[in-house]
Amino acid sequence: MPEIKKKRGDPSEPEIDLPRLKSLVDGVNRFGRDARTGGFDRPGYSDADMAARRWFADQMRDDGLAVTMDGVANVFGRYGPDDGPSVMAGSHLDTVPQGGAFDGVLGVCVALECVRAMRDARIEPPVAVEVVATAEEEGRFGGMLGSQALSGQVSPAWLEHGTDADGVKLADAMAAQGLDAMDALLAARQPGSVLAFLELHIEQGPILETRAIPVGIVDAISGVSNLAVTLKGKANHSGTTPMDMRADAFVGLSQFAIQIPSLVADHGTQQTRITIGKVELQPNFPHTIPGIAEFSVITRDTDESVMRDLVGVLKQELHAVAGKHDLSYSVSEKSWLPPASLDDGLVSALCHEAENLGLAHIVMPSGAGHDAQTMQAFCPSGLIFVPSRAGISHAPEEWTDWEDIQEGAQLMLNMLVRLCRDGGSADGAERAAS
Amino acid sequence: MPEIKKKRGDPSEPEIDLPRLKSLVDGVNRFGRDARTGGFDRPGYSDADMAARRWFADQMRDDGLAVTMDGVANVFGRYGPDDGPSVMAGSHLDTVPQGGAFDGVLGVCVALECVRAMRDARIEPPVAVEVVATAEEEGRFGGMLGSQALSGQVSPAWLEHGTDADGVKLADAMAAQGLDAMDALLAARQPGSVLAFLELHIEQGPILETRAIPVGIVDAISGVSNLAVTLKGKANHSGTTPMDMRADAFVGLSQFAIQIPSLVADHGTQQTRITIGKVELQPNFPHTIPGIAEFSVITRDTDESVMRDLVGVLKQELHAVAGKHDLSYSVSEKSWLPPASLDDGLVSALCHEAENLGLAHIVMPSGAGHDAQTMQAFCPSGLIFVPSRAGISHAPEEWTDWEDIQEGAQLMLNMLVRLCRDGGSADGAERAAS
Repeated sequence: MPEIKKKRGDPSEPEIDLPRLKSLVDGVNRFGRDARTGGFDRPGYSDADMAARRWFADQMRDDGLAVTMDGVANVFGRYGPDDGPSVMAGSHLDTVPQGGAFDGVLGVCVALECVRAMRDARIEPPVAVEVVATAEEEGRFGGMLGSQALSGQVSPAWLEHGTDADGVKLADAMAAQGLDAMDALLAARQPGSVLAFLELHIEQGPILETRAIPVGIVDAISGVSNLAVTLKGKANHSGTTPMDMRADAFVGLSQFAIQIPSLVADHGTQQTRITIGKVELQPNFPHTIPGIAEFSVITRDTDESVMRDLVGVLKQELHAVAGKHDLSYSVSEKSWLPPASLDDGLVSALCHEAENLGLAHIVMPSGAGHDAQTMQAFCPSGLIFVPSRAGISHAPEEWTDWEDIQEGAQLMLNMLVRLCRDGGSADGAERAAS
Repeated sequence: MPEIKKKRGDPSEPEIDLPRLKSLVDGVNRFGRDARTGGFDRPGYSDADMAARRWFADQMRDDGLAVTMDGVANVFGRYGPDDGPSVMAGSHLDTVPQGGAFDGVLGVCVALECVRAMRDARIEPPVAVEVVATAEEEGRFGGMLGSQALSGQVSPAWLEHGTDADGVKLADAMAAQGLDAMDALLAARQPGSVLAFLELHIEQGPILETRAIPVGIVDAISGVSNLAVTLKGKANHSGTTPMDMRADAFVGLSQFAIQIPSLVADHGTQQTRITIGKVELQPNFPHTIPGIAEFSVITRDTDESVMRDLVGVLKQELHAVAGKHDLSYSVSEKSWLPPASLDDGLVSALCHEAENLGLAHIVMPSGAGHDAQTMQAFCPSGLIFVPSRAGISHAPEEWTDWEDIQEGAQLMLNMLVRLCRDGGSADGAERAAS
């Protein structure tokens, strides 16, 4: 496709510098790396997470950007005019425990690489670009604290009572990093101050790879319900208590877990995902009948009414299982992120930019939650996916080919350039791109 | 029953001093007490376990007994002749995590109280009584290391490779307490040096309480198979991986667990108990599909061929579940304690002594493993049960009424006195009691 070559070879057109981007990603990934597993541990507000943020802030400072950190540890680097609204681009730096090398960090580094490429091409955008490294996207404390705070979607109750799956309080985890949880309320940006938000992220699923397409443009994101469930029976000696006189909390959990496929078949859609990812038994000793089973149930769908229906039948099933196995139970709704439709104008504009680049692409929903869905409630937001090898993510084996990253990053760069030139409006950008 | 009153009032007959016994039990239970739950944490070779042993040794020393500790931390206190064989009585001081106030410690304290009562009654037995506080009975490292060591049933391979459910090596746990695991081989007593072993223990099940009988005399003890199982799938993002493309290790575990009731119905007996007590997922994070599930499967029955059959079908089921859910698996047989029949002569002699005391009693099997079953391979062994409230054990709520303890302890005392007078032989004791 000669027209792409020409476009990329044009000195006036900024271009992604892949080795520089790779080196930036590697730099962040020096923090929290587990040499034993090859995974990365940067849970929100961990020491590794905060160290990575400070390091990334230093890189942006070295690039001459105006760098700030807000009350929830979102890190911003501003390029362009000091005043006025901005176009924001980025993703998160935190990871799940034993996460992969790309989830979050790639989108942050691509955003900064875009700015570096604009600077190299001597582009001085009339509208500022803000690179953002959001905080606590992975939902350690439920939700996506960083982007929710900057978009003004944080409640004092959450800040006060939020806990992680181990019972650590959000406020305590933040205090340990010198942050005051209540400052999250001061992190809210003024309405209209961010004209658009763009994020690049790995797909974390198998669709792009299966179809051999380098770029997905996301139009909708599944909502996430996070239930914390406790089943309580009677811890007892495993040798002396007849099988039919037990109140075994783990037996109850197993009976509940095996109902999930039929609940999905009866009440879900193709986009439904229900997962029991975390289980803690007490006392968790081979020779003792489990007295308590605490576990998480994550429910996702792109249709909020489907989500409500699923959570309802999950609770009914829990009630039935508890009754049958002589258990008591409690359910706590840790968080509820509604599904989101991303900005139509940005979806169209991204498709146009992809076509201009000659990039094969599809419009697709996202099964995973992303900062872009939170930001959409605040400003027009767009999300670019690049493929995940074997669909694997949240695991050390997570991988995306760098050739695919280059394509996705160039799409992000071109979209950012057009957006800034056109005053931050996707409609304007779309018109310009047509 | 006036003849009991007379017997107990007789100054020449030793009698249990219940307040003194209670105070001794309380003394041991100062070690490892969890004030938050009311439970006790003295796992084998923990600091609390070792401190309790040293404290108990001091009590026996204060009583003038000849006190020794062997290479696995079994503690002995000898009363009577310095030389020659002994009659041994006792139980264990270690607990399961969050165990109760009676499991093990009661039998150790009753044995010492029996010696104190004999001493108060100025009984100088022609055969020595040895009080024993055995080590590591609860099977932290599989088996019952203390009684297996003193009865010569320990292999160097176990000492070298034994690990607990957290992967801590037996040799390391012992070394942390200044013990050399290989010294367990030197702890074996000479054949013939122990004439009989008597243990008092709480039933840990509901039978005695349900039937309102204060004393059980155990004739058989279930064997215990301890399997450590790993199911391995693929850790992955819980939002992006379609339900039918997952290799979820916890789904596999749930499917395996729910098969257990039908396996017991088809291949087990009334005495069969199968328990999944310990479960560890990796990475154990709400938003990640579990890649690995490690869990314990404890199988018990009084019939060894039934146990072998059950373990066989459990492994078949595991194979089937792993295949169905795209998982790999491994099974490690951590330990195999065969069922045991206790000494017929001691069962009869204990029944006679109970009748002499006018004590309601039944002969019953034990679903739990006990030191007496290990000792039976070495010398005639007997086991007395006292009731457990609501059948609860291995839990902070574990309780036995002190009136029942007094009855059981008096039976132990009378049996010990008869055994020592009759040269340590149950047959002689039985004849004398008739």
